[in-house]
Amino acid sequence: MKTGIQHLYIPGPTNVPEAVRQAMMVPMQDHRAPDFGDLGLGLFRDLKTLFKTEAGKVMIFPGSGTAAWEAAITNTLNPGDRVLMARHGQFSHLWIEMAKRLGLDVQVVDLAWGAGTPINEFARILGNDRHGEIKAVFVTHNETATGVTSDVALVRRAMDDCFHDALLFVDGVSSIGSIDFRMDEWGVDLAVTGSQKGLMLPPGLGILGVSPKAIAASVSNRMPRAYHDFADMLRMNETGYFPYTPPIGLLHGLRRALDRMMDEGFENVFARHHRLAKGVRAAVQAWGLDMGAEHPSLYSDTVTAIRTPQGVDAREVIKIAYDRYSCSLGSGLGPLAGKVFRIGHLGDLNEGMCMTALSIAELAMAAAGVQVRFGSGVAAAQTVYAEPVARAVQRLHAAE
Amino acid sequence: MKTGIQHLYIPGPTNVPEAVRQAMMVPMQDHRAPDFGDLGLGLFRDLKTLFKTEAGKVMIFPGSGTAAWEAAITNTLNPGDRVLMARHGQFSHLWIEMAKRLGLDVQVVDLAWGAGTPINEFARILGNDRHGEIKAVFVTHNETATGVTSDVALVRRAMDDCFHDALLFVDGVSSIGSIDFRMDEWGVDLAVTGSQKGLMLPPGLGILGVSPKAIAASVSNRMPRAYHDFADMLRMNETGYFPYTPPIGLLHGLRRALDRMMDEGFENVFARHHRLAKGVRAAVQAWGLDMGAEHPSLYSDTVTAIRTPQGVDAREVIKIAYDRYSCSLGSGLGPLAGKVFRIGHLGDLNEGMCMTALSIAELAMAAAGVQVRFGSGVAAAQTVYAEPVARAVQRLHAAE
Amino acid sequence: MKTGIQHLYIPGPTNVPEAVRQAMMVPMQDHRAPDFGDLGLGLFRDLKTLFKTEAGKVMIFPGSGTAAWEAAITNTLNPGDRVLMARHGQFSHLWIEMAKRLGLDVQVVDLAWGAGTPINEFARILGNDRHGEIKAVFVTHNETATGVTSDVALVRRAMDDCFHDALLFVDGVSSIGSIDFRMDEWGVDLAVTGSQKGLMLPPGLGILGVSPKAIAASVSNRMPRAYHDFADMLRMNETGYFPYTPPIGLLHGLRRALDRMMDEGFENVFARHHRLAKGVRAAVQAWGLDMGAEHPSLYSDTVTAIRTPQGVDAREVIKIAYDRYSCSLGSGLGPLAGKVFRIGHLGDLNEGMCMTALSIAELAMAAAGVQVRFGSGVAAAQTVYAEPVARAVQRLHAAE
Amino acid sequence: MKTGIQHLYIPGPTNVPEAVRQAMMVPMQDHRAPDFGDLGLGLFRDLKTLFKTEAGKVMIFPGSGTAAWEAAITNTLNPGDRVLMARHGQFSHLWIEMAKRLGLDVQVVDLAWGAGTPINEFARILGNDRHGEIKAVFVTHNETATGVTSDVALVRRAMDDCFHDALLFVDGVSSIGSIDFRMDEWGVDLAVTGSQKGLMLPPGLGILGVSPKAIAASVSNRMPRAYHDFADMLRMNETGYFPYTPPIGLLHGLRRALDRMMDEGFENVFARHHRLAKGVRAAVQAWGLDMGAEHPSLYSDTVTAIRTPQGVDAREVIKIAYDRYSCSLGSGLGPLAGKVFRIGHLGDLNEGMCMTALSIAELAMAAAGVQVRFGSGVAAAQTVYAEPVARAVQRLHAAE
Repeated sequence: MKTGIQHLYIPGPTNVPEAVRQAMMVPMQDHRAPDFGDLGLGLFRDLKTLFKTEAGKVMIFPGSGTAAWEAAITNTLNPGDRVLMARHGQFSHLWIEMAKRLGLDVQVVDLAWGAGTPINEFARILGNDRHGEIKAVFVTHNETATGVTSDVALVRRAMDDCFHDALLFVDGVSSIGSIDFRMDEWGVDLAVTGSQKGLMLPPGLGILGVSPKAIAASVSNRMPRAYHDFADMLRMNETGYFPYTPPIGLLHGLRRALDRMMDEGFENVFARHHRLAKGVRAAVQAWGLDMGAEHPSLYSDTVTAIRTPQGVDAREVIKIAYDRYSCSLGSGLGPLAGKVFRIGHLGDLNEGMCMTALSIAELAMAAAGVQVRFGSGVAAAQTVYAEPVARAVQRLHAAE
Repeated sequence: MKTGIQHLYIPGPTNVPEAVRQAMMVPMQDHRAPDFGDLGLGLFRDLKTLFKTEAGKVMIFPGSGTAAWEAAITNTLNPGDRVLMARHGQFSHLWIEMAKRLGLDVQVVDLAWGAGTPINEFARILGNDRHGEIKAVFVTHNETATGVTSDVALVRRAMDDCFHDALLFVDGVSSIGSIDFRMDEWGVDLAVTGSQKGLMLPPGLGILGVSPKAIAASVSNRMPRAYHDFADMLRMNETGYFPYTPPIGLLHGLRRALDRMMDEGFENVFARHHRLAKGVRAAVQAWGLDMGAEHPSLYSDTVTAIRTPQGVDAREVIKIAYDRYSCSLGSGLGPLAGKVFRIGHLGDLNEGMCMTALSIAELAMAAAGVQVRFGSGVAAAQTVYAEPVARAVQRLHAAE
Repeated sequence: MKTGIQHLYIPGPTNVPEAVRQAMMVPMQDHRAPDFGDLGLGLFRDLKTLFKTEAGKVMIFPGSGTAAWEAAITNTLNPGDRVLMARHGQFSHLWIEMAKRLGLDVQVVDLAWGAGTPINEFARILGNDRHGEIKAVFVTHNETATGVTSDVALVRRAMDDCFHDALLFVDGVSSIGSIDFRMDEWGVDLAVTGSQKGLMLPPGLGILGVSPKAIAASVSNRMPRAYHDFADMLRMNETGYFPYTPPIGLLHGLRRALDRMMDEGFENVFARHHRLAKGVRAAVQAWGLDMGAEHPSLYSDTVTAIRTPQGVDAREVIKIAYDRYSCSLGSGLGPLAGKVFRIGHLGDLNEGMCMTALSIAELAMAAAGVQVRFGSGVAAAQTVYAEPVARAVQRLHAAE
Repeated sequence: MKTGIQHLYIPGPTNVPEAVRQAMMVPMQDHRAPDFGDLGLGLFRDLKTLFKTEAGKVMIFPGSGTAAWEAAITNTLNPGDRVLMARHGQFSHLWIEMAKRLGLDVQVVDLAWGAGTPINEFARILGNDRHGEIKAVFVTHNETATGVTSDVALVRRAMDDCFHDALLFVDGVSSIGSIDFRMDEWGVDLAVTGSQKGLMLPPGLGILGVSPKAIAASVSNRMPRAYHDFADMLRMNETGYFPYTPPIGLLHGLRRALDRMMDEGFENVFARHHRLAKGVRAAVQAWGLDMGAEHPSLYSDTVTAIRTPQGVDAREVIKIAYDRYSCSLGSGLGPLAGKVFRIGHLGDLNEGMCMTALSIAELAMAAAGVQVRFGSGVAAAQTVYAEPVARAVQRLHAAE
C-alpha cells in the first residue's frame, strides 16, 4: 500500500499538470462537427510558434514519437537512399535501426555513449559526398539516454559550408517544448517530438514539423505508406480536421498545455528548464559522481544521467527508489544498463520537485552502497535555487 | 451557450462511461516500472476472450483503427500481392484505397452502398483462383457508413469450400465489442478494431487480433515497416510491455472498460445492442423511411443509416440536430452525403438514450421538411423497450 | 450491471455540467493563502447579481439549504417570536417544524398540498396584527414537493399595504438560479438557496441572501448560535475569506457554474427553464393526468408533480423507471407519497433531456398500469420544442 | 505563472489522493434512491472502527469540523451548564469562544500556547467539584496551532479517580485518522473530526462520534437546534440515509479514503505518521530551532510548529515559500503570528514529500534571514528515513 505522491522523475512520460488533466476529461465529441476544426487550427498555429517555423507545417499523428519518426522517413525518402546518422545513445541507436528496416542505406558514425553529434566527422563526410548521394542527415537534438544535447545549428552550418542539400532530420522528442528549438533558422526539414515530454501530456501523439522542402520531397517520394501519409494529413489539416479519428482528449490537453506554456512564455519555459537543470547538476557534482554526458557543453537541460561508482549497480538505486520511496527514476538503457540512472527534469516542474528527486536519490544511493553524504546534493541545488529568479534569468541572457 | 448534455449518437467515438473516464485520470506513470507489465498482460488476456481467440494474439497499437489496418497489411503481405475486396460503403472504400497505396494488387468487387459482402461472388472468384494468387480476402464485418453487418462465417465457408488458403482480414472496428465476433471459429487471421466504438474509450488505440498463420506470414514478409512491426510488439508484449511509450491513460481506461463489459457479460453486451437496435429500427419503420442497408438480414446492431426522402437534404437534419438540439448524428459519407443520416447505437447505451436520439431526430427531420409525425418513432421504440428485458433476451436466444 | 447514462430528473441534486465537475477537481489549497480571497470576493459579487440585491449581502455556508434556513432564523429572530407561515407541501412543512424547534411561536396557515402561498389570508392576518407581534413572514417561493411557485411580490405588497415591518423570509432553494428572483425589489430580508439545484453543483453549500434590515436584526438578536453566526461570516467575507475551512472544491465549482450562467445570461437561463417546463407540462396534459399544483398560475418552471390515476401507486412508476430504465424521478413526499411522482427540470438541461425523462416516464407509467399512449407526451413536448428558440423567447417577453 | 506541483504542507486541508479525487467525480445521484443507503451504512460501520467505538455512533454532518463542535454542544448540554476547558492554542481558544456564545458557563484554565492539557489542574478542579456542577470536560487531543498532542486517557483517569460523571468532549480534528484514537477505551462521549485532515478529503464534512451517554443526554437536553439535531440524524442513519441532502461526492470520497486506510491498516497509518513526523522533528533539531510544543512528550505526529529565531518574522518564511517556491506552509495563529510557521505532515504522505517540505523550508528560512545550513534538516530527516521501514515499525511497537 503506497501513500502520498508517486514521485515521477523519468525523462518522460512527465508529470501532467492538473489543468491539462482536467482539459482532457471532455466527454466524447464528434470529430466531424462543424466547430471541431477550430481546435485543430489553433493547435497547428501555436505548434508552429513553438517549433519556430513560419514556412513549414506541424502535423499531429495519433501514436508515439516513434510513429512520427516513421512518418518522417516514409514520406520523404526512397528505399535505398543513403542517410548519415550517428549512434551515441539508445535513441539514436533505435532511429538507426528503424532507418535500416525501412530500407535506407545508413552510414553510421559510431561514438561513445555520452558523446554529442560528431559535427566535424559529419562535415568531413558531407564534404566528401560530391555526388550528393547522402539524401538525409539525422541529428538527435537531445539524446535522452545519456542526457546529451547537440548543437543542431552547427550541423546546419556544416551542411551549408559544403552546399549539401540533404534533408535535415532532427529528433527533438525530449527537447522541443523544453529547450529552445529553431526549425527555420536551423534549416530543419523534419522535426519530431511526442506529447509526453516537454508538452506535459500523456503519451499518444507524435508531432512532426515539416519544411516546404520536406513536403516537396513527399510528393515525388515512392516509399509506401498510408496511415502516415502527409498528403492526406495536410489536406484535412487545412480546415483543422484529421483524415481519421484523432485522440480528441489529447488534443484538448494539448490546447491547455500550449496555453500554459504561452502564459509563461516559451523563452521563460526554456530559462526555467535551464535553471532547474543547473541545480540538479550541482547536486551530482557535490556527490562527486560522473555525468552521462562527456562534456559540460553537452549537458542537457531536460535529463541528467548519473554514473554510479564502480561496484554499485544503478538498477539497485532505481529499485530502492521505487520500492521504498515511491519514486520513479530513469534507467540506463542498452550498454548503460546498470551503469547509470537518470533524473528527468522537464515539463511541469519546479524547485521543490527537483529537490524531492535529489533527496530521494541520496537515500536510494546510500541504501545501494554509494558513499554519499546525506543532504549534500540537496544543499548544492539549494545554493542554485536560493538565487532570486529574476537575477538567474538575467544571468542566462547575459551568457548567451 | 449550450446547456445540458451534448447528445452524442454518432457511430464513434461513442460515449465514454464515467467509470472509464475516471480510470484514465491517472497521474503519469513509468511505463517501464517493474509492476507496469501486469496491466498489459491482463489486457491481452481479456481482449483474447473478447475476440474469441485462444490460438491468436491481440496487439494494441497507439493510433487509430486505420493504424491497425496498416499494421495488418504491412506485416503479412508483400508488395504486388493480389487481394480480394468488396466496395459497399465508405470504410470498405477507404480500406481498398489503403491497400492500393501500400502496393497491393486489389481485385475489387463493386456493389451498391448498402449491400453486404458478396459471398457468392467471392466464392466464385476464389473458386476460380486455381493457383492461389489471391493472398488475402478482406471483409468489412460492419460497414459503419451504411449500417450493414456481413456474415464472416459464410466467407470462411466459401474459402474452405474451395480449399483456399488466403489470409482472412476482417474490419471489425464498429462490431467487435458490440456484435458477436468469433475469431477462431471463423478462421479470421487479422481482426481490426479501435478503442472508440464498442470499447467505449476515446480514440487513440488500434487493436489487432492476429492468428498464428498471420504471425507466421509476418516472419517471412518483406513489406517495410518499423513502428507497426509485429515482432517487436510481440516480444515486448510477452511480459506486458510495449516497444515504445504506450498511451498509459487509455490502457487504464481499457482495463476499466473490459471490467465493465465482463461484469455485464460479453454475451449480454451483444444482446443489449441487439435489443436497443431493434427499437431504433422500429422507429425508422414507423417514420416510413428507408434504411441504408439493402435487406433486413444486413441490419447492423451498432449503427442505423436512415435515408431522407427525396428533396430533403440529410445534412440539414444533422445541422439542425446539432445547432438547435445539441445532438451529434452521423452524416452520409461519400456518395451518401446528403442522402442519409446515421444514428450510432453502440457502446455505453440504454433505452433512454435511444429514445433521446429518436425524439431529437424527429424534431430535426420535421424542421428540415420531412413529413414525420411527432412521437411516432419514439412510440415504436417504446413498444420494443416496454418488454421486460428477461423475455427479450430469451427471445433472442430462441431465435438463434 | 447498468449501462449508459444514469438519467437524473429529480428536483435536486441536479445534473452537474462537465465544466463544473472539472472545476471542482482542484488539488487541495490553502484557504488562508494570500490570493485565496479573490475567489470569494468574485463569488459574493456575482451571487448578489443573481439574487438581484445591491443593498444586501450573500453568504455561503458549508452545509445544505437546511443549514441556511437555520442560519436565517438563529441570527435574526428571538426565542418566542411569533412568525407567520403556510403549510402547503413537504418543504414548507419542514420549515415550520424547524421554526418550532428553534423556539418560535409559529402561526400556521394550513392549506391543501398543491396550493400556493395564501396571499389574502396572509394579508388579513398581517392587517389584524396591530401591535406588530409577527416578527417574520415565511414564504416558500417554489414548493419543490408539489411544483408550486408563489408570487413573492404579492406578499410584499400585502405587507406594505398594512405597513407591516416583519422580516420577509423566502425559501428559494429550488427557484433561485432557475426562476427570476428579485431580492431588493420584493423587499426580501432573508433568501435561502442551496448549491444542488439551479446552481448545478453537488450538495454542500447553503447560500443565504441577507438584507441590511436582517443584518441589523442580527446585531441585537439573542438566539444562541456560533457556526452560523453572521458577524463572523461577514467580517471574514469582507476580504473574501471564511471563518472556518470552506468547501474549496465547491467554491471553485460555484465559480464555474456562475460563469456559465452569466455567459448564457441570467434572464436567458430563466427563459430556458420556462420553455423547457412548458414542454413537460404539455406532455402531462397530453397524458390526461393532473398536476400537483392546484392552478396553472402556480405551475413551477423547475419541477412538475404528476398525480397518478386512482389505483396506480406512483412509487411503482418511480421504481420501474429506476430499476428498468436507469432513471431517477422524484417521489411524492408526506401525504403525497404514492400519489405523485415528480420530474425535476432545472439546472443544466435541454430539450433532449426533457424528452428523455418524458419517454421513460411513459414506459414506466405503462408498466405500472397507467393508461398512457406511447409517444403522446413526447409528441406534445416536441410541439413546444419545435418552435425556434428566438420566437419562443419573444413570446415569453410579450407575455410579461 | 506557477509551474509544477503546488506543494501543500499545511495541517489541513491536506493533499487528497488521486484515487479519492476520482471517487468524488461521480455524476449526481438521487440521495433517496433505494440503493443509496448502502453507502451510508458502510461509512458508519468503518468510521466506528476508526474511532474505536462499538457502543457509540458516528454521525456525518455536511459542514466543517466547527459544525460538528456545535452539534456536540447543542445536543448534549443546556444553557448555563458549567464546562471545564483549557486554552493553550488557537483551536482550544476558538472552542472556548463557541462554548461561551452558546450560553455555557466556561471554566477556563489558561496556559502557555505550547502546553498540553493540564491533567493535574483538571484533576484538582474535578476533585473539588463535589456537587457535579461541571457537566462536561473539553480536551483538545491535538492542538493544531502549536503541534501539541495531549493524553486523553489521563484525563479520563483523572475523571474516574474522583468518580466525576461529566461528559468528555474531545476535539480530534487533526488527530483522528492519523494518531491513534480510542473512543470507548478512553470513555470519550463526543469526539469531533473533519474531512480535510487525516481523512484526506476536501473540507465539507464534520464527523462526530457520540457515546450512548451522549445520546441519552441529547434526549432530555433543551438547547435549541434543528439542523444538527441528533435524533433526526440517528433515525435516518439507521438505514444509511440523511435528514437533508448530503454532500454526495464527499461521501463517495470518504468511502475510497477509508478503503485506502483499511488497505494500509489503521495501525500502520498511525505508525507511518509517527515515522514521518520523527524525520521532520529531526530536521528542526538539526536547524537548532525550537518547537511550538513545550516538551517532547507533547510532540504531535501530524503537525510541527517551528519557532523562528528572534528577529525573523515567520510570516516572511511563509510568504517566500509561497511566492517563490509554490509551497504552502502553516502560519502562526493568534499570539503566535509571526513567531512560528507550521509544517503539516498528515494524511496522504510519504518520505519524499516530507523532504520536499523541509528543503523548501530551508530555502525560505535562509531567504528570510534565518541562519540555517542548506541541507542540514533534510540530512537529519534522511537519517530517519534511511532506516528500513520494517525495523522502524518494530521499534515503534517496542517503545509502546
